[in-house]
Order: sequence, then structure tokens, then C-alpha cells
Amino acid sequence: MKIQLALDLLDPRKALDVVREAGPHVDIIEVGTSLLKHSGIAIVKDIRAICPGKPLFLDMKIIDGPEREALLMAQCLPEYYSMLAVASDTAVSKVLAIASQNNAVVVFDLQSVPNPVQRARELKALGATHLCVHKNADCGDDPQQAFREFLDVNEACGLTMALAGGINLSTLPALKEQLHPEIAIVGGAILNADNHRHAALNFEAIAKSH
Amino acid sequence: MKIQLALDLLDPRKALDVVREAGPHVDIIEVGTSLLKHSGIAIVKDIRAICPGKPLFLDMKIIDGPEREALLMAQCLPEYYSMLAVASDTAVSKVLAIASQNNAVVVFDLQSVPNPVQRARELKALGATHLCVHKNADCGDDPQQAFREFLDVNEACGLTMALAGGINLSTLPALKEQLHPEIAIVGGAILNADNHRHAALNFEAIAKSH
Repeated sequence: MKIQLALDLLDPRKALDVVREAGPHVDIIEVGTSLLKHSGIAIVKDIRAICPGKPLFLDMKIIDGPEREALLMAQCLPEYYSMLAVASDTAVSKVLAIASQNNAVVVFDLQSVPNPVQRARELKALGATHLCVHKNADCGDDPQQAFREFLDVNEACGLTMALAGGINLSTLPALKEQLHPEIAIVGGAILNADNHRHAALNFEAIAKSH
Repeated sequence: MKIQLALDLLDPRKALDVVREAGPHVDIIEVGTSLLKHSGIAIVKDIRAICPGKPLFLDMKIIDGPEREALLMAQCLPEYYSMLAVASDTAVSKVLAIASQNNAVVVFDLQSVPNPVQRARELKALGATHLCVHKNADCGDDPQQAFREFLDVNEACGLTMALAGGINLSTLPALKEQLHPEIAIVGGAILNADNHRHAALNFEAIAKSH
């Protein structure tokens, strides 16, 4: 299981501090949607300078403007970026085609999808390889629903699965054992820790345990 | 009817050139989603310097992280910004509350909503005042569907309505007469014109005609 550190904050200086401390101990570094809107893609270069070679994920949440959004990614070349699973099939196909040319993986975020299992099957047919079950306590989502949605979607499509939403050191061991996500996305539990490096090391230990 | 100029492009220098030429002749200047992700909110300051006092719209397409996204808007204070209508009710309520404190209007983009009329009624009940019917040819949307969706949603909720998607000088007169949108959002027809100022003046003439 990989740990993805989500830089879900607005202050780019704090974000880069966290990357310096925790970045070397996680598998993927995610530029959060709000941070990207705050700082633009220049933040990608800053993170690369601190952690060269570490895979980056841009939480783009693409829904339209497929060529424009995918060409923007070609300017900064993250290893992963997100698209909303509610986007149209046409937009999905266009983004997947451009991402493939850039050796990037598109991760489809299942937020607000009325029927996640059906949509996951459709996305797989369009060529998607990675899905993210993403439940936000701050949007009123029910964490129990995330659990069921993850299992149902995983069983239905067998794609690489990420899980996001309020994951912490107490909940990750059970999530790992019961859901087996390929990627666990952790934000606040590292960002708000007194010691970011120490928190990342603790998550790494769980991820690598058997 | 107001004309909103959508800066749907990736090059900030070209965007600012267009603002210099066309900005004074439109009612609202929109920072497109991709431009915002490219340049971050610094672009807002650059546009304000060229067209001080002109209302700005940031095409944020918020779907989650409601406090973070709305606080980001408090840092640059656009008059309008967008949220996806597919977002959860909890996220909608949080964003509306913070926008109200900043005297900003949240425009709900009805893209990918399974039942736009029902969702428009729900959004109105949550306090929404502005909706956008947004159909993208580049996402495979049918422009005829935009027409019907606009009329149905407008009749059902009576909120302030914007219309976006491939509007040009040939189509705007009929759209104005038959749909009466409060705001017509124009991108490519101004961005790709040889003379941006001239194109904006032509749209302004249609908007102000009786």
C-alpha cells in the first residue's frame, strides 16, 4: 500500500515545509485543489526541487475543457492527476488520450457520482485504470458509505483503487486489512501533526507492515 | 443581458492582452478554470490592474473542501465564483455562507447534474441565487439540450440564469430572444477573433439591443 500525502492547505510556504519534512517518507505527494488554485502550477517546480523523483499527484478534478486541462498537465508533467468521474465520456476519453502521451495516470474521483459501481464499469470501458473513493466529512459524507462503496466498486471493476477522506493513524490499519487500497491518501493527519516527519514515518510503518 | 468574457486559455500573457482590448466592453471578466490552475490567484490582481472596478468571475468549480475554497476566494475577492451543482448540500451551504460574508455571488454550474430541474429547486432552497446552464461541445454535449434545460430550469426556479457553451455572434440574438439569460458567457468567439475589441463591441451591441 502506498501513502499519498495530500497538501490540502492554502499556504504554499507551509506546504513546502511539510514536503521538506514528510515528503521523503511518503510514496506520492499531492498538490491539493485549493493549493493549485492559489499558487498555480509553479508549485510543482518548487516541490520537485525539494523531492526530486518523488511521484506527484495534482488534484485537478477535471470536469470539462479536456484538451486545455490535459495540455496544462503537459506543461508540468505530474505522474498522476485527477478527473471527476461525473465528467462526460467524451471528456474522459480526451483526457485519457493526452495523459497517455505524457505517461501520466488519470485517477477518477468518484465524488458525487449517483451510481459509483456503474460509473466505474463505464470508466474502465473507456480506458480508466485508477479510481478514487473519496468521502469528505466536511461535505457531510458518511464514512461508512465510503467503506461499502470501496468494496462494491473494487469487486465490480478490479481497477487500482485509492481511498481518501479523514484517514488517520487509528483508522488506517483496519482500512488496510479490510479494503486493501493500493493508495491511501492522508491529509490532515500529517498536515496537522506537531511533527510532520514523525507522522509520515508512522503512516509508512503501517503501509509497509504485513 | 450582461456579457461575461471567459478567459478560457492557458497563456496568461494572451489572457491579459485580451483583457486590455476587450475587457472594457464586457460586463464581467471570467478567469477560466485552466488559467486559474496555471497562474493561481495572482492573475486576479493583474486583471484588476488593467480593468479596475470591472466585476470578476473565477471559474472555481468548487466541489469539496468548502471552507478552504471559500477562504481562498476571500484572499482575492472576486465578485462571482462558481461551484459545481453536483456538490453536496453541506458543501453548498458552507460555501454560500462564506461567500455571503465576502459579498460574493456563487454561481452554480449545472454540468453533469442528472436532474437539473430538481437540483435547481434544491439549490434555491439552500440559498442559491445564480445558476449556469453550461454545455460544452468539447465534452460531447448537445446544444439543443442546453436550450431545453435552460427553459425548464428557469421556469422551475426563477433564479438569475447564465448560459455558457459555444455562444457566438450568429447564435446570440436568437438565444437572447428565446431564453432571456441574464448573463451570456462568451469565450472562443472573442478569444479567437482577429480583433478582440471589435468582437466585444459586437457582443455588447447585441446585449444592449431591444
